[in-house]
Amino acid sequence: MEAIGRRRWVIAEGYIPETGTGPEPQMTSHETVCLLNASPEDAAVEITLYFADRAPAGPYRLTVPAERTRHVRFNELDDPERVPRGTDYASVIVSDRPLVAQHTRLDSRQAENALMTTIAYGE
Amino acid sequence: MEAIGRRRWVIAEGYIPETGTGPEPQMTSHETVCLLNASPEDAAVEITLYFADRAPAGPYRLTVPAERTRHVRFNELDDPERVPRGTDYASVIVSDRPLVAQHTRLDSRQAENALMTTIAYGE
Amino acid sequence: MEAIGRRRWVIAEGYIPETGTGPEPQMTSHETVCLLNASPEDAAVEITLYFADRAPAGPYRLTVPAERTRHVRFNELDDPERVPRGTDYASVIVSDRPLVAQHTRLDSRQAENALMTTIAYGE
Amino acid sequence: MEAIGRRRWVIAEGYIPETGTGPEPQMTSHETVCLLNASPEDAAVEITLYFADRAPAGPYRLTVPAERTRHVRFNELDDPERVPRGTDYASVIVSDRPLVAQHTRLDSRQAENALMTTIAYGE
Repeated sequence: MEAIGRRRWVIAEGYIPETGTGPEPQMTSHETVCLLNASPEDAAVEITLYFADRAPAGPYRLTVPAERTRHVRFNELDDPERVPRGTDYASVIVSDRPLVAQHTRLDSRQAENALMTTIAYGE
Repeated sequence: MEAIGRRRWVIAEGYIPETGTGPEPQMTSHETVCLLNASPEDAAVEITLYFADRAPAGPYRLTVPAERTRHVRFNELDDPERVPRGTDYASVIVSDRPLVAQHTRLDSRQAENALMTTIAYGE
Repeated sequence: MEAIGRRRWVIAEGYIPETGTGPEPQMTSHETVCLLNASPEDAAVEITLYFADRAPAGPYRLTVPAERTRHVRFNELDDPERVPRGTDYASVIVSDRPLVAQHTRLDSRQAENALMTTIAYGE
Repeated sequence: MEAIGRRRWVIAEGYIPETGTGPEPQMTSHETVCLLNASPEDAAVEITLYFADRAPAGPYRLTVPAERTRHVRFNELDDPERVPRGTDYASVIVSDRPLVAQHTRLDSRQAENALMTTIAYGE
């Protein structure tokens, strides 16, 4: 399929709760960005994180292969540094190929999980 | 009413939980794409699914009649193949007429259900 | 403030559960479209509902006054007809002035409520 | 990074519940707008609130520093006036620099929290 999407995406909301309940790892509190690369070429992606009171972190580098999706948990990003817990952040995702980015949070701080999602802001 | 919407839509998030609680079928964990065809002509739609580590599946073909909505559960797609459970996926929806696509998940893995929704990415 | 928004909006997801729990009316299961008219002139709005297997219903007519918001519960629309419960629908909102439309559902079928929201599709 | 986003954003949904459960302040019912300013210059932001049956309130003024995010709780806005509880409102966010705005609500009126989010409407 031909490429679909944009090359720059923003998720202004970001917060990884410090605690969770339920079976690991499905029910661990987590923030995810789902990336789809429908094009016939691999996409090189860089994620930069922004905070309220310190300099940005990153870039975190990853590849989304041609005609594949990657659901990236911010919880698992650790190079060049781990994403701090209990801290407000935002993210900018830049790709060398058109992608679509969607943001999801599963919050399991209380006994029953809560979910939220939105297509990211793309341009 | 004249046609409204776009011909290509993307939902980058996709995941059908393997388990659920509560009365069937309303409370079965499910992922849905809601399609509205407000135009006076039927729309022929093709859905392709993308995965993290295998080739895409589909296309799944369906019709959204003129001036009708169809709320399609990914759980129920089975031709050319069933959508795997407990597996990350993403979807691209292509129509020959303008449509609007909205994504919803009901997650009933724990005792109380959780909901999320977003208008898909259209172009 | 000058006008902001679009004149045509679509919410492809619509479903009013038949039951709910908790204190009325705040915790009644409901679907809402929130409309903001930031312009200095009143906006005349028409909502049309689309279904899976019958002709559309409406238009439902309402006014969003200048510099005011109206949070319209689909539950309460009853002219020209009540919105059916337990039935999939979609809605198109047409205004003679630019508006912004956002969709929210509160689902209280189980003991703990669930929420979802998205900015509608505008053009 | 170069600037990304828009200068005018709308959140048509707004409602701060009057009650909540769980530990303060993380689990206080709240509405948030998350703002990201990825540009190398500070952004001056004005938020105006719209209601169903009274004149707008504001502007509420704040700064989003260069390369920083601010997650603003409507609960905490109090100049020129406190945001009323249990009242429908909508908000317009105007910035002198491109930003991205995302809306989130945590509702803790019942024992288990509910979450919802959407990228705001930008132009």
